[in-house]
Amino acid sequence: MSESETALIVGAGPGLSAACARRFAADGMAVHLAARAPGKLDELCAEIGAKAHRCDATDPAQVADLFAALPRAPDLVVYNASYRVRKPFVEVTAEEAAQAIAVSCTAGFHVASEAAKRMVDRGSGTILFTGASASVKGFPQSATFAMGKFGLRGLAQSMARELAPRNIHVAHFVIDGAISDPENARKAALEAEWGPDSMLNPDEIARTYLFTHRQHRSAWTWEIELRPWVERF
Amino acid sequence: MSESETALIVGAGPGLSAACARRFAADGMAVHLAARAPGKLDELCAEIGAKAHRCDATDPAQVADLFAALPRAPDLVVYNASYRVRKPFVEVTAEEAAQAIAVSCTAGFHVASEAAKRMVDRGSGTILFTGASASVKGFPQSATFAMGKFGLRGLAQSMARELAPRNIHVAHFVIDGAISDPENARKAALEAEWGPDSMLNPDEIARTYLFTHRQHRSAWTWEIELRPWVERF
Amino acid sequence: MSESETALIVGAGPGLSAACARRFAADGMAVHLAARAPGKLDELCAEIGAKAHRCDATDPAQVADLFAALPRAPDLVVYNASYRVRKPFVEVTAEEAAQAIAVSCTAGFHVASEAAKRMVDRGSGTILFTGASASVKGFPQSATFAMGKFGLRGLAQSMARELAPRNIHVAHFVIDGAISDPENARKAALEAEWGPDSMLNPDEIARTYLFTHRQHRSAWTWEIELRPWVERF
Amino acid sequence: MSESETALIVGAGPGLSAACARRFAADGMAVHLAARAPGKLDELCAEIGAKAHRCDATDPAQVADLFAALPRAPDLVVYNASYRVRKPFVEVTAEEAAQAIAVSCTAGFHVASEAAKRMVDRGSGTILFTGASASVKGFPQSATFAMGKFGLRGLAQSMARELAPRNIHVAHFVIDGAISDPENARKAALEAEWGPDSMLNPDEIARTYLFTHRQHRSAWTWEIELRPWVERF
Repeated sequence: MSESETALIVGAGPGLSAACARRFAADGMAVHLAARAPGKLDELCAEIGAKAHRCDATDPAQVADLFAALPRAPDLVVYNASYRVRKPFVEVTAEEAAQAIAVSCTAGFHVASEAAKRMVDRGSGTILFTGASASVKGFPQSATFAMGKFGLRGLAQSMARELAPRNIHVAHFVIDGAISDPENARKAALEAEWGPDSMLNPDEIARTYLFTHRQHRSAWTWEIELRPWVERF
Repeated sequence: MSESETALIVGAGPGLSAACARRFAADGMAVHLAARAPGKLDELCAEIGAKAHRCDATDPAQVADLFAALPRAPDLVVYNASYRVRKPFVEVTAEEAAQAIAVSCTAGFHVASEAAKRMVDRGSGTILFTGASASVKGFPQSATFAMGKFGLRGLAQSMARELAPRNIHVAHFVIDGAISDPENARKAALEAEWGPDSMLNPDEIARTYLFTHRQHRSAWTWEIELRPWVERF
Repeated sequence: MSESETALIVGAGPGLSAACARRFAADGMAVHLAARAPGKLDELCAEIGAKAHRCDATDPAQVADLFAALPRAPDLVVYNASYRVRKPFVEVTAEEAAQAIAVSCTAGFHVASEAAKRMVDRGSGTILFTGASASVKGFPQSATFAMGKFGLRGLAQSMARELAPRNIHVAHFVIDGAISDPENARKAALEAEWGPDSMLNPDEIARTYLFTHRQHRSAWTWEIELRPWVERF
Repeated sequence: MSESETALIVGAGPGLSAACARRFAADGMAVHLAARAPGKLDELCAEIGAKAHRCDATDPAQVADLFAALPRAPDLVVYNASYRVRKPFVEVTAEEAAQAIAVSCTAGFHVASEAAKRMVDRGSGTILFTGASASVKGFPQSATFAMGKFGLRGLAQSMARELAPRNIHVAHFVIDGAISDPENARKAALEAEWGPDSMLNPDEIARTYLFTHRQHRSAWTWEIELRPWVERF
């Protein structure tokens, strides 16, 4: 049984998930990343000593396998995956709606369920959900994203109420704005145009995630919004 | 092509849906009811001259068939179906979660999609969604219901923002409390114990639904809560 | 002691208050209007048989006198007054802030207090508060209006929770948009430019107020938003 | 002109304000405390090298004097004062309502106004408001506290929207639960009964306040809830 505090990040991509992985590793955690295509994470894993796992979180069996492969019950689980379609409502297909709900919401349930079982047994743990402004406001041309993100928030809030007294900290983050990405030329150009710090720096989001995980249980937060200083809201 | 204003109620049962059907019929509408087991609606249909349709709204093909079978594009569509599991979070199965989301949320999308296509073409219509207190508050032991009901609210809000300027009125109702049911002995007993009018009278809910449908477009409501006078909130 | 159902409208001007007065009178109520300058209401009072009272509602003694002058405890009280300053936050004076809070919030307390005392004694009544989009969203350059309108909403919500079980219906309206005014040339011109029904018709708002007053206590609403179909929200 | 980063805490008492003062001082800030009876702060000031100021924040002139007495424009201002009356609504006097609004809301405006003027001139600063569960939910028998706390939240939200693009971070904290106080025998006894960490530890609240002040402007939070793990919400 591993002795290290262990973090699992699901839906891992190059932006927020990588920043979380680096921040958690720097804080001494053993970091595990799960993605449908984990090969893209090799460089990051080598850099910080993390381990990547192949997992399509919309499949509960793969999620069960993922948790079984961890060296110990994770102390911190972050759910980052989402799926967005932006088009006129009447043009959205049933398949697109099903996919949006599966990735943005139902897969979050699968991950949370496996995490909660282990955390309840141990009597401690933190589960963090990444939401968006669409978690609290249904925008036009974005109905399926709103369905998925509202649904994920409902999951997180119900879990927070039920599991806090079991010493499990569940929190939901409303990420309101675009996340900057130095590897993405278009995003870098946008930030250059909009001014300094006009996009969310993923390292700063990760710093708030870690702070939330470290909050003392006498003063837990269940929801935090994060947005750039110049973002309209 | 039928000339009568037409209402479609999906997820039709003996409580709220029957009350809506009677109210809408009394207001002169041609009423259609859709349920997985429409036989139970025969008596109601005979009473008010409505028509029942067999439809499992979680199947988009059946929903498409339902709308194709209507004599004209409906003027008013009410989505009433939901599915609830109440148990400790760690005991909820993946199948239960999938079913809750399918009935409470995704099927609502299928119905709304077919309705909106026809209403956008015509340039008018009303779509009403029945929510619950769980639509805005995630209660313990009720995570999958919260997922479904939060998700349905996200759908309704996004549609309201997008479709109001197309002259389609989308509204969401937060039904906060138990609906009384004279045919249900247990509910009748509860109300006798809790005092007069301590449960939601479905005829009064239906009256507010009809009022909302009749609101002038210069003053539309997108969300209304309804609860008994003695309900704690 | 008067036998007629009695309505009192405070903060009465030519737009919403006049529309409420006409609607309530048409429904058979004896209507009383209170304003700092009641002379402007003479024509309306003659038209519908209402009575105007001079009252600065920021003064609790004048509010007590107003209620004492009514022929019976009112069955329906509507609080419509508000005061708005729109300027950069750092330019708002202490006097402007005090005035905004006094008119938009504290005076609402004075009216609600006198109304509630009488309604609790009788065991019935309705108190309606007119809010704005600023009641739920603090806009830039509008801090004192947000203070007043948020505060009034807090009053209304607390009263609703406490007084509903005493058979007193308290409701809060979020009026989101500009109210059209046929007597106001600028507003009429705006509506002509923005398209049909692009501003809130006060008669339609009044219709929803009356409907809310008439809701059966098994299905009461505490908050309702109203906005034109083309309003962005 | 002082070179030290400077914090001002208004409404300073022995619980949260003292914890903030200690935390900010430990982080290297020059700390100023303002209270109507500053003598009670002498021991704390001696302990951490802070300075106490006499100020009744409901008086705008005294607030102006307070800011004028600071050695430099504060970098961080915390508004902690509030006033609560808990009794049946119909028993609340106009004087109690006026006092609740003056302390919980209007005085917050006076402090925020003086702070914002200086921070806008300099182009940086943080203003933090302490709210309560009553800031977002109007409880029975607590209408005037709801008025004040809702109003303060409206102020904070409007300021956040207007001043964030001026590089001023405004945040509002929903403190949901009782704050423990080792000097208060009754509170200590309650916590002993309710279990470990069942009340908010003021040092942990202060840690979140400082973290919020230190957030990078690419990822600012405007509202954070804090509650003990066993608190019902």
